[in-house]
Amino acid sequence: MRAKTWVFVAVSLDVYIARSNDELDWLDTANGQITPGEDCGYAAFISNVDTIIMGRGTFDKARSFKEWPYGGIPVTVLSRTLTKAPAGSPSTVTITDQTPFAIVEELSQSGAKKIYVDGGLTIQRFLKVGLIDELIITTIPVLIGGGKRLFGELSSDARLGLVSSASYSFGFVQSHYRRIA
Amino acid sequence: MRAKTWVFVAVSLDVYIARSNDELDWLDTANGQITPGEDCGYAAFISNVDTIIMGRGTFDKARSFKEWPYGGIPVTVLSRTLTKAPAGSPSTVTITDQTPFAIVEELSQSGAKKIYVDGGLTIQRFLKVGLIDELIITTIPVLIGGGKRLFGELSSDARLGLVSSASYSFGFVQSHYRRIA
Repeated sequence: MRAKTWVFVAVSLDVYIARSNDELDWLDTANGQITPGEDCGYAAFISNVDTIIMGRGTFDKARSFKEWPYGGIPVTVLSRTLTKAPAGSPSTVTITDQTPFAIVEELSQSGAKKIYVDGGLTIQRFLKVGLIDELIITTIPVLIGGGKRLFGELSSDARLGLVSSASYSFGFVQSHYRRIA
Repeated sequence: MRAKTWVFVAVSLDVYIARSNDELDWLDTANGQITPGEDCGYAAFISNVDTIIMGRGTFDKARSFKEWPYGGIPVTVLSRTLTKAPAGSPSTVTITDQTPFAIVEELSQSGAKKIYVDGGLTIQRFLKVGLIDELIITTIPVLIGGGKRLFGELSSDARLGLVSSASYSFGFVQSHYRRIA
């Protein structure tokens, strides 16, 4: 069975995932204080992720952090220019230039059940070929007016089912959508 | 006291208010059947609107409908080219080329308390100068991939307070945001 592909992302109300310069400073724009320790479900979400698929941009950003943010989870990086992981990369990193379908197929055959797809362009690329199954989108109560968009062009409408939606006392709204086959 | 300015709008999950050709066919993309008679709060919202402000594009679209959709509510149309309402317009229509501030000031002095601002470019223009007080946004569970956007560029972030958020059994999510002064 094909692994399910998941998006778990925070967006501004105008649906940007980052400013043009990649800054995420707007992410903590809350109505009052964010409940201490509240991670909006991220730890529960990531706890049973088999593999993370991301683009080169997200990979480079993750490498720039003091601590590699994905622990021991296998990470597949999409790149047309890299042929192998740069020196110093975690041993969990694999570089590939395969298509989304080929990657998901291969991971599924290796037993993957829950794949986390991350990074704006990568998410758009997977959505375009109908390869995103579940989206958990957390909307921050702020308009930032420009930046990197979560969604891009599609060749046809993508209908989604709303699985659940809930709001936090500090003004975030989290909605879970599922692809309608 | 200045009248409150309201937005009440439906958007696709990728935050378009219409396709590029103005089509709204995607608006009824629901999870199952929309509850018969359900208007997602529109009748209650419009019942105490004093004045509607809209751009020329929205005005022309409204005029093309078999029935004028705004009943007896006074409508102010922003236009730089029209000097008076076209022949056959309802008597409730006023044309103006004043600035958003001047219009809201004048309407407030005439006793307006709740102004409905409609049309993508007009909403963007009012948001840009901090002149939208309340937004009720209903998100339809579909990605349409392109079209006319609800939000545009801003000169700085606009922080919002989440007043409430709720979902409908047929997959729409409605969130009410309020400008933080």
